[in-house]
Amino acid sequence: MSSTASITGPAPTKPRDPLLAAVREGVRVLDLGRRLYIGMPQSPNHPAYWHTLPRRHGDRVREDGGSAANDMLVMGTHVGTHIDALAHVSHQGKLFGGADARTAGEGGVYPDHGVHTIAPMMCRGILLDVPAALGAEVCEPGYEITVADLEATERLQKTPVEPGDVVLVRSGWGRQFDAPGRDAFIGHDSGVPGVGESGARWLAGRRAHAVGADSIAFERLAPGAGHSSLPAHRVLLVEAGIYIIETLDLEEIAAEGIHEFTFVLSPLPLFGATGSPVRPLAVISEPVTGGGRG
Amino acid sequence: MSSTASITGPAPTKPRDPLLAAVREGVRVLDLGRRLYIGMPQSPNHPAYWHTLPRRHGDRVREDGGSAANDMLVMGTHVGTHIDALAHVSHQGKLFGGADARTAGEGGVYPDHGVHTIAPMMCRGILLDVPAALGAEVCEPGYEITVADLEATERLQKTPVEPGDVVLVRSGWGRQFDAPGRDAFIGHDSGVPGVGESGARWLAGRRAHAVGADSIAFERLAPGAGHSSLPAHRVLLVEAGIYIIETLDLEEIAAEGIHEFTFVLSPLPLFGATGSPVRPLAVISEPVTGGGRG
Amino acid sequence: MSSTASITGPAPTKPRDPLLAAVREGVRVLDLGRRLYIGMPQSPNHPAYWHTLPRRHGDRVREDGGSAANDMLVMGTHVGTHIDALAHVSHQGKLFGGADARTAGEGGVYPDHGVHTIAPMMCRGILLDVPAALGAEVCEPGYEITVADLEATERLQKTPVEPGDVVLVRSGWGRQFDAPGRDAFIGHDSGVPGVGESGARWLAGRRAHAVGADSIAFERLAPGAGHSSLPAHRVLLVEAGIYIIETLDLEEIAAEGIHEFTFVLSPLPLFGATGSPVRPLAVISEPVTGGGRG
Amino acid sequence: MSSTASITGPAPTKPRDPLLAAVREGVRVLDLGRRLYIGMPQSPNHPAYWHTLPRRHGDRVREDGGSAANDMLVMGTHVGTHIDALAHVSHQGKLFGGADARTAGEGGVYPDHGVHTIAPMMCRGILLDVPAALGAEVCEPGYEITVADLEATERLQKTPVEPGDVVLVRSGWGRQFDAPGRDAFIGHDSGVPGVGESGARWLAGRRAHAVGADSIAFERLAPGAGHSSLPAHRVLLVEAGIYIIETLDLEEIAAEGIHEFTFVLSPLPLFGATGSPVRPLAVISEPVTGGGRG
Repeated sequence: MSSTASITGPAPTKPRDPLLAAVREGVRVLDLGRRLYIGMPQSPNHPAYWHTLPRRHGDRVREDGGSAANDMLVMGTHVGTHIDALAHVSHQGKLFGGADARTAGEGGVYPDHGVHTIAPMMCRGILLDVPAALGAEVCEPGYEITVADLEATERLQKTPVEPGDVVLVRSGWGRQFDAPGRDAFIGHDSGVPGVGESGARWLAGRRAHAVGADSIAFERLAPGAGHSSLPAHRVLLVEAGIYIIETLDLEEIAAEGIHEFTFVLSPLPLFGATGSPVRPLAVISEPVTGGGRG
Repeated sequence: MSSTASITGPAPTKPRDPLLAAVREGVRVLDLGRRLYIGMPQSPNHPAYWHTLPRRHGDRVREDGGSAANDMLVMGTHVGTHIDALAHVSHQGKLFGGADARTAGEGGVYPDHGVHTIAPMMCRGILLDVPAALGAEVCEPGYEITVADLEATERLQKTPVEPGDVVLVRSGWGRQFDAPGRDAFIGHDSGVPGVGESGARWLAGRRAHAVGADSIAFERLAPGAGHSSLPAHRVLLVEAGIYIIETLDLEEIAAEGIHEFTFVLSPLPLFGATGSPVRPLAVISEPVTGGGRG
Repeated sequence: MSSTASITGPAPTKPRDPLLAAVREGVRVLDLGRRLYIGMPQSPNHPAYWHTLPRRHGDRVREDGGSAANDMLVMGTHVGTHIDALAHVSHQGKLFGGADARTAGEGGVYPDHGVHTIAPMMCRGILLDVPAALGAEVCEPGYEITVADLEATERLQKTPVEPGDVVLVRSGWGRQFDAPGRDAFIGHDSGVPGVGESGARWLAGRRAHAVGADSIAFERLAPGAGHSSLPAHRVLLVEAGIYIIETLDLEEIAAEGIHEFTFVLSPLPLFGATGSPVRPLAVISEPVTGGGRG
Repeated sequence: MSSTASITGPAPTKPRDPLLAAVREGVRVLDLGRRLYIGMPQSPNHPAYWHTLPRRHGDRVREDGGSAANDMLVMGTHVGTHIDALAHVSHQGKLFGGADARTAGEGGVYPDHGVHTIAPMMCRGILLDVPAALGAEVCEPGYEITVADLEATERLQKTPVEPGDVVLVRSGWGRQFDAPGRDAFIGHDSGVPGVGESGARWLAGRRAHAVGADSIAFERLAPGAGHSSLPAHRVLLVEAGIYIIETLDLEEIAAEGIHEFTFVLSPLPLFGATGSPVRPLAVISEPVTGGGRG
């Protein structure tokens, strides 16, 4: 949502572990996850996010003066910022790797393709800020980001994608997230910008580990078409085995001009589920000046 | 759950960012989160975890052969591996900082103390492997881990706790998680080992940023007492403003003898909620030998 | 939804119980409840109705060849055809009878005013078919049904309301339930016809036991106003202690010209809840000609 | 739960409709439904009943002083007192009528066998109070009620079952519902009394419209066997197309010695679901002495 100060203070002793040493020198954590709240924009194909407090403070106070409040959550997994597991999409009855999509889900879980099979990620992340490279604030609604756009962005930014990277493609559509009414961000009538089939093939060819975007569906949606055709999902999830991260908040990182970073993502290990809400992070080294914790 | 190979391959070009440079040299990610599944052990005070597939592959196949499966989740937030926000516990009608606990939750959310206010963490993490230091496999049920135990562990491990660290206290109780029947791990009748009020004060005195343990309630539960009294929660959440992480899987990290590491945690920003399921990570540098992605 | 044939066959022996004797002579049951399905029109103020199948046939087949499918429901209680308990609405901090509204719900339930306190109903029911009396198909959107309208309807139909009756006020708005898009029935922009404060007072003066209508909010909504002001709810629930039934299907009963009938309603005894989905019935004697069960 | 006084007052004018005339002479409504509350006994195979208040009074007060509270429900459909639709059970891959059980549920609903296809019931109801006929308070745990028991009960009570009746078989097990701990009523270890395959065949031979019992599973469960084999379900739901009502409260009606009555049941029309929570009624004529409403 917003920039988050590192909670690390200055290290009295320099650790021998290079990673921990770098962390203790000071890091800045940029939060790429959207806040989850009742009524937020999400795809109507998935159960809406609801949160309630079964118990509030004061409902039951123990003799010693203590009281606990708790929550109930109801939601789909493809709500808020989230990741698609390979179980999410099939083509002609097959999942990635050729498994039969119907039998894979017998029992109400996908044991071999579910989101619990996604390893936590800490790796190089690349932001391809397409509108910035095109000299625009944001891509137009329904605009298909081309291979030429991706390559121009990569070149201008001097951030060549390498195998194993997580590649986040910004269209600027994320600015609609906070627009009044949830329909603007969903963008059914307007269409939504994003890569199409060819862009997806380019990302697969670069052997990205996972890809992401600042819209619900990751890929370009034609005006009025909704989710009737999702060729980039097919290419990435079914053909290439590449995870897709959606509804990212890429505005702050773009405003800062940060195009290369350590990407961190730890999906909930929901056994057999087709996706998980996540809160991905972009982290960069930034020496601590003040110290103190956030 | 299990050790997770780094997804990072060898870096062709050495990044200038020290953190990213360390990551690209090779890291090993240890997963401290428990898998979430229907019927897993959890506190009966919270709505049980349920997952279903509203749509499975084959239910609706688009003309182009594509099909999507999706999920519905129902759960409390204090289920699986999870973090307690400051909103979770009050004492004598007050939350941390003195806010009135009742009015803080009017409207059904805790805007100022909810889990969305917890900044993502990437910082030094310390495992205090208490039974290892005591020369035992695991602590006895209902055993209260003393300040002397904590200090002996810290000393033996040569891992002094520093301000801002996340401190994970292992009792070994996590081995009960996979025991038959969910009651063993809940441990109502047997009691559960953990720190008590004095241990909590010690952790607060060390100015930990967050603390965690491998049991549901973090703190010691007396046999048969359940959650009738939770003094460590009061000390940590209400008095000291220190987050608590529960139901961690600390078995692998303990078996490996890893006591100091980079701790990563990114709670879901559930607006106004009292907690969040999480999948925390312990990460250490480990030069890539084979390369390749996991 | 649709007319439902009696399941009663001809009775071989005439029962001594007058009610059972009347039933066995033949009754016709008219279903006043709307079908519940994902995506149906409902107020956005309440959690949306969702239904999934955690287990489907074939997921687990027992050795003897048996298999069971089951469901998970998530919903508000003010969805589909439903009844409002006295706990639903307060005015100036008071519930019906003067109870303090805030303390009445401590603990997350309304023990004294919840829907579990509504006794099942089998009593005289009256349909006031207002548009029919006014010589119209349906009332205009946003039209306030006046006391004069109610009295004219009662007179024309020759169905004077008596104390203890359940009075169903038809505006014809129920025809919007099956309109494309859920917004038509919700009627935020158009407004919705129904009684206003004066009509509610009239119904309370007649000492109705419960009242109902074929719209979500029972009462008249001004165009664009939504639920910003609900004076009829105040009069009925808070001042008079009269239950309100909403989203009724009154089209068939109106088409049949049935204005007086036996009304049957059996709300789910959801402890402490503010309402319940229901399936109310209008039953009339109708000698069995063919016999056989439906 | 408890006896419910009729809400009907004395009728000033005698209605011409025989049913309504009988109702207005005075009826007594006996509630056969169990109250639904968090923690109540239910089968662990189904999502547990949870109820929360997203909004309580005082959370949002409108300018005019009005406030509304509302609910969120999460539950399986086979919880509390409930009815099994024909979609619930299959045998050798077939539902009642021979439909393929797997394809019948594609899309996540059972359009042809779901609970929405059950017509509301107002018909003759028979209570077979088996322990009373056997001279016992209750049947022993795990006791199989035999055909001889059913016939003896029918004969002693002088209530021959006729085609189209709803037949409720009391074992007395319902007394366990309020026992401490939810395990007693579930009865996994103890076993639960009820009819077996032969009793089910007898009920089917009598052409009952629906059957019910005061236990979760309707039929006899052997000690320790749980739901591993449910032959009566197969006979009734799959072979005979007879609905099953479970977890009824038959204690009051039995204590009153009421064996023949008007049975009323109106399942929620949950599209495509395998069951529905219900609140069934037994109604008898009982002239109003005091009048007044309940």
